[in-house]
Amino acid sequence: MTPTSLANLIESLRVLPGVGPKSAARMAYHLLQRERPGAARLAANLSAALEHLKPCSRCNNYSETEVCDSCADPRRDPRLLCVVEMPVDLNRIEETHAYKGLYFVLMGRLSPLDGIGPREIGLDRLIKRAQDGVTEEVILATNFTVEGEATAHYLGELLKAKGLKVSRIARGLPAGGELEHVDGMTVAQALMDRKSI
Amino acid sequence: MTPTSLANLIESLRVLPGVGPKSAARMAYHLLQRERPGAARLAANLSAALEHLKPCSRCNNYSETEVCDSCADPRRDPRLLCVVEMPVDLNRIEETHAYKGLYFVLMGRLSPLDGIGPREIGLDRLIKRAQDGVTEEVILATNFTVEGEATAHYLGELLKAKGLKVSRIARGLPAGGELEHVDGMTVAQALMDRKSI
Repeated sequence: MTPTSLANLIESLRVLPGVGPKSAARMAYHLLQRERPGAARLAANLSAALEHLKPCSRCNNYSETEVCDSCADPRRDPRLLCVVEMPVDLNRIEETHAYKGLYFVLMGRLSPLDGIGPREIGLDRLIKRAQDGVTEEVILATNFTVEGEATAHYLGELLKAKGLKVSRIARGLPAGGELEHVDGMTVAQALMDRKSI
Repeated sequence: MTPTSLANLIESLRVLPGVGPKSAARMAYHLLQRERPGAARLAANLSAALEHLKPCSRCNNYSETEVCDSCADPRRDPRLLCVVEMPVDLNRIEETHAYKGLYFVLMGRLSPLDGIGPREIGLDRLIKRAQDGVTEEVILATNFTVEGEATAHYLGELLKAKGLKVSRIARGLPAGGELEHVDGMTVAQALMDRKSI
């Protein structure tokens, strides 16, 4: 009974996180009935984002150019390299205006139980990036979750073995907390109180 | 700092119901990182749905053809016309297999406080549809909410004035209840217990 193109739309909306069959149907009808221009923009912007966004060759964050604006910014301090799990974490740190160095975005974290090891999150690219001869300190700003801590520990050992100075943002964040959800002041404090490991 | 195509994607995801800036960002990163093929399908299916789905000229439901499969089905009883608010309500009734007549989908309900009057939900099209000379009974299956009841009352008066037999599904549904969320048995009972008004 449901037309094919409507069934296809409902089915494909389920790729969105946390969207089951019922919410997908509701979203589809909402878009068709009340948001046609917005839905057309969404389709176009989704295609454009998929086409244009590639990992920045320096920081691994999404970028429309080979090297992203942040990595290409001469006002940033190239001696500092801050490693975060996800782009939202990078944005969270930027909002505090407490950091003026460069970034590396892992796009994940070590999680052996989920089959995510050093190769899956491309740690070799980070190691290579950190050995550019300009980087003096690598600041590990992964989350204070079990996986984030394990990732920081693993990375710390690896980077120190290459003779780099490595620091970890201070445990100003509550245990189990995630950068994305903590207030800016706490994030800024954690950045300032980073300690060598 | 956020690339334009990523900012555009995040902004346009906010047309989805109940999606604020934070969830929109999370959805965008989820799609880019873990669901690229699914996201491409979503963009394509969204465009296709917007292009192909038009209101059926008979029942006003979404259709890829001038007259939808349901309205064109010769096995359905053309003497019965069931009026529902939304396509989800029609699907809910179909699932019960308790009804074999035709439908009319209002795509809304009267809601004067929101500025939705008879003209906005195209009641004149329903009145015209019901006067095709074949329809013998119009079953009002709008929700048992305040707006749904008002819509049924208004429609009932209008259709009776045209000499049509009008019935209302039985109040088997709990007060304030919505078709979409009630179990099939209750919906079937309400259909069987409909009474003339």
